[in-house]
Amino acid sequence: MLEAKIKSEILKEVVEAASLLIDEGKFSISQDEISLKAVDPAHIALIELGFSATAFDVFNASPMELGVNLDKLKKVIRLASPQDIMTLKLDEEANRLNISFANLSHRMALLDSSTMREPKTPNVALSTKTTLNGSDLAQGIRAASTISDYIILTATPEALELSCKGDTDAINVQLSKDSLAEHQCQEKVRSLFSLEYLSSLMKIIKPTDAVCLSLGNDLPVKIDFDIAEGKGKVSYLLAPRIGPD
Amino acid sequence: MLEAKIKSEILKEVVEAASLLIDEGKFSISQDEISLKAVDPAHIALIELGFSATAFDVFNASPMELGVNLDKLKKVIRLASPQDIMTLKLDEEANRLNISFANLSHRMALLDSSTMREPKTPNVALSTKTTLNGSDLAQGIRAASTISDYIILTATPEALELSCKGDTDAINVQLSKDSLAEHQCQEKVRSLFSLEYLSSLMKIIKPTDAVCLSLGNDLPVKIDFDIAEGKGKVSYLLAPRIGPD
Amino acid sequence: MLEAKIKSEILKEVVEAASLLIDEGKFSISQDEISLKAVDPAHIALIELGFSATAFDVFNASPMELGVNLDKLKKVIRLASPQDIMTLKLDEEANRLNISFANLSHRMALLDSSTMREPKTPNVALSTKTTLNGSDLAQGIRAASTISDYIILTATPEALELSCKGDTDAINVQLSKDSLAEHQCQEKVRSLFSLEYLSSLMKIIKPTDAVCLSLGNDLPVKIDFDIAEGKGKVSYLLAPRIGPD
Repeated sequence: MLEAKIKSEILKEVVEAASLLIDEGKFSISQDEISLKAVDPAHIALIELGFSATAFDVFNASPMELGVNLDKLKKVIRLASPQDIMTLKLDEEANRLNISFANLSHRMALLDSSTMREPKTPNVALSTKTTLNGSDLAQGIRAASTISDYIILTATPEALELSCKGDTDAINVQLSKDSLAEHQCQEKVRSLFSLEYLSSLMKIIKPTDAVCLSLGNDLPVKIDFDIAEGKGKVSYLLAPRIGPD
Repeated sequence: MLEAKIKSEILKEVVEAASLLIDEGKFSISQDEISLKAVDPAHIALIELGFSATAFDVFNASPMELGVNLDKLKKVIRLASPQDIMTLKLDEEANRLNISFANLSHRMALLDSSTMREPKTPNVALSTKTTLNGSDLAQGIRAASTISDYIILTATPEALELSCKGDTDAINVQLSKDSLAEHQCQEKVRSLFSLEYLSSLMKIIKPTDAVCLSLGNDLPVKIDFDIAEGKGKVSYLLAPRIGPD
Repeated sequence: MLEAKIKSEILKEVVEAASLLIDEGKFSISQDEISLKAVDPAHIALIELGFSATAFDVFNASPMELGVNLDKLKKVIRLASPQDIMTLKLDEEANRLNISFANLSHRMALLDSSTMREPKTPNVALSTKTTLNGSDLAQGIRAASTISDYIILTATPEALELSCKGDTDAINVQLSKDSLAEHQCQEKVRSLFSLEYLSSLMKIIKPTDAVCLSLGNDLPVKIDFDIAEGKGKVSYLLAPRIGPD
């Protein structure tokens, strides 16, 4: 059983995040939370997202898994106004999700979730933790993109540094400890990442978001931020690339 | 003889509508009205538009027919500001229309209208009549486009329904009698139409326009609305498609 | 030695103008001015631009020439906010320009300017001089573009005229002496120019700019206007085309 009501702009944010790495996803539903975990086909990035039943206006659910075509769901949400309340109802017999808002109703076929395997979250110990604004992270990523296809994230006890070298040029964005909301770093660590993945991620991070980066030496970066007005959260893990030095 | 003055934004609206199905059109001009009738090359839709001499600031004309390259005329109008007054003068000897506004004058060659045949309006009796907002019609068409290339319009005594079925999904937009400005329907009728034609038509219908739909069972839909600040009107007739059921 | 500070929006304007005809340019720097002169590969247009040291917040320089990849410089400037102060410092040893603003620093390799030849400004005596608004020039160019790929500029003692003829149509924009800020013309002159070059030029001329046109009979047109809040100027010389008539 699933019967829920949610503001379309909140659902939109969640679905945009969920579809970052995949077109079809499996949502796990419990009585008080909806979550999704996915990796991209190349297994370079992993996204975990969860949002609380309190993000809904109404939420009644028995535990279940829902296989969803995310592209299709995004198209439906785009038809709604941001303030429209969307009603979601599971039609178990027909294996369909009925979505309705305003005058519109959409019967959406669900996918067979039994064949969708859930990725395992790798266990990595990351030694540093920095909280910065989405806008600062975005600027560093945009700057690096002008000359390269990768970016080096370096944490020192004094600063977080976003940098890269092209064939002839070099870019450096320096965020000093004082300008950061939070910065825990005992000793210098450094890893190199694909800009392609980070640029896509920036599509769902807002300039005003508080973004938490966790780093280790040549280890993945973990990027955490809130969605759905603080009632949901995203954890994004991106593998390092072996790069020029 | 033709000598006329008209605000560029009004002329723009008329020409955008006239060019919906055709690139070259024949305007019929009488002392108090300009009109045009055209079908698309596949003979699936017919558009009739007329607008009164009162839409003009000045209008002096002898009855005539003008063959016009509508694409070219649209480009000229786009050079004007919405409030510019455009002066149109026929140069009969040179078979040219002289268009001038602000500092600019354009001498536009006319086409030979004698070879442009006027389509006949088919005589169809449509049993229902519904008036709705342009925005409601647009939403239904956009929703149907997410899963299909056709739409079913159904009128019942209680409601107007816009719906379609894709391979696995279904969309339904329900406009109850009470939410409609006008709804005359004795018994249920239903026809299926190509979304391609309806989507193009929505480019010239404004969200606030009152749009009148006339329907019959497996018959064309007639779509009527005003243009040119109420001084002109468009009547669009779209043939039904044989579709899945 | 070069050390300078300048508001990013001023630098942007200068670099956009400099890159109109070329991708790589040689800036000549003296103690109180920066200038650049370039022709397009086909030698049809020549641009000269200069801007005063007073356009900078700080400007300390020894005379030198800087070979710059303008495309790369534009990308860097786009990362800045319009009000950001950009610091430019020459690293002579590494032959690099260090550009920094906000948290960001970019080390940009310079090009070998010794192989970049400076074009000579042809010596042409143009008999007329007209000052008009950027917006009026832009409208004439846009209008001509609807039917042709060239434009005729004609000055008579009474007016400046922008016109062209297509296969069947003709456009004429008439700017009478009274509507022009300045108009010096003893006798009629007329030349024909490529719209391709003029359309590109309009990307850097603002609608409110005072644009000075100098014309002669079948001679180049010289187009002068200010940039960088009046602290810089552009002189653009465009060769005439042999055209229909």
